[in-house]
Amino acid sequence: MATAPEKPASTSQLDLVLTRTIDAPPALIWKAWTDPEHIKKWWTPAPWTTVECEMDLRPGGIFRTVMRSPEGQDFPGVGCFLELVENERIAWTNALEPGFRPATNDAASEQDLDCHSLIFTAIVTLEEQAGGTQYTARVLHKDEAGRKRHEEMGFHDGWGKCLDQLAALMARLKG
Amino acid sequence: MATAPEKPASTSQLDLVLTRTIDAPPALIWKAWTDPEHIKKWWTPAPWTTVECEMDLRPGGIFRTVMRSPEGQDFPGVGCFLELVENERIAWTNALEPGFRPATNDAASEQDLDCHSLIFTAIVTLEEQAGGTQYTARVLHKDEAGRKRHEEMGFHDGWGKCLDQLAALMARLKG
Repeated sequence: MATAPEKPASTSQLDLVLTRTIDAPPALIWKAWTDPEHIKKWWTPAPWTTVECEMDLRPGGIFRTVMRSPEGQDFPGVGCFLELVENERIAWTNALEPGFRPATNDAASEQDLDCHSLIFTAIVTLEEQAGGTQYTARVLHKDEAGRKRHEEMGFHDGWGKCLDQLAALMARLKG
Repeated sequence: MATAPEKPASTSQLDLVLTRTIDAPPALIWKAWTDPEHIKKWWTPAPWTTVECEMDLRPGGIFRTVMRSPEGQDFPGVGCFLELVENERIAWTNALEPGFRPATNDAASEQDLDCHSLIFTAIVTLEEQAGGTQYTARVLHKDEAGRKRHEEMGFHDGWGKCLDQLAALMARLKG
């Protein structure tokens, strides 16, 4: 059985990618990523907040968050982890529910312009780089329409702001 | 990070389960399961045949087969592996394509009564038992309609016949 890190099949027309150098070692970012209390501090672009987070850190384990809008509306999201390689890689999807069950997200709900109904797999990789970390988030969509919709919803601004928040948290944790 | 075997969330109304005691050790069944040349001998209930099989045995790796009907029509199916624990457990799904990309199977194709469009995750477990193996296949559907459709298509007969073929192959390999 192959044990080398899986290089995900990537088709640029279907993927969105965000990369950033963060001034903290992979182990510290891993900690911020895998502790629900830390996740709440950076996961959602302010003034939105993450008010709940549940993680079972194993393949098929639950990854559930509740995001709250500035108006106080809650947006729950649930999926499961696919791969966890400590300090290196985290993959999760909302195409599967916990325990790997196919999700009930259907085409109808995908037509909804609510970003929380968007189906994707995300693969975050952490690569050590001169004392810091090259952080890359690759988001895989099923088709070009999904990628386009996600992009138009402000993927780069939203996920980028979260990365700023993660970098700020790293600075506080190191300080 | 937890390393204990994942017990999949199971809801009997959504799942189909087939279990059988096979007179061969888990390691031999594992071999029959993970070698494409062996898979072709038992994967499809005769007189159907499996004419192609491609496997990349790692999480996110491709699992692709082409089944041929007695009339000569080919039915390709593709998905990816989710978990591989040698001699113990194999999980795969067609809700994700290789590299974990959400599959393009949509609600429209699911309406199709062709069984090859059915979306599921399957988890096969091998438990050593007095020299033989308790073989359990649990198939997880997204909803009760999916389970019911799969059952009406002849899940128990079809998957059961494949298990007979696997048991027969085991007897030949041992003999």
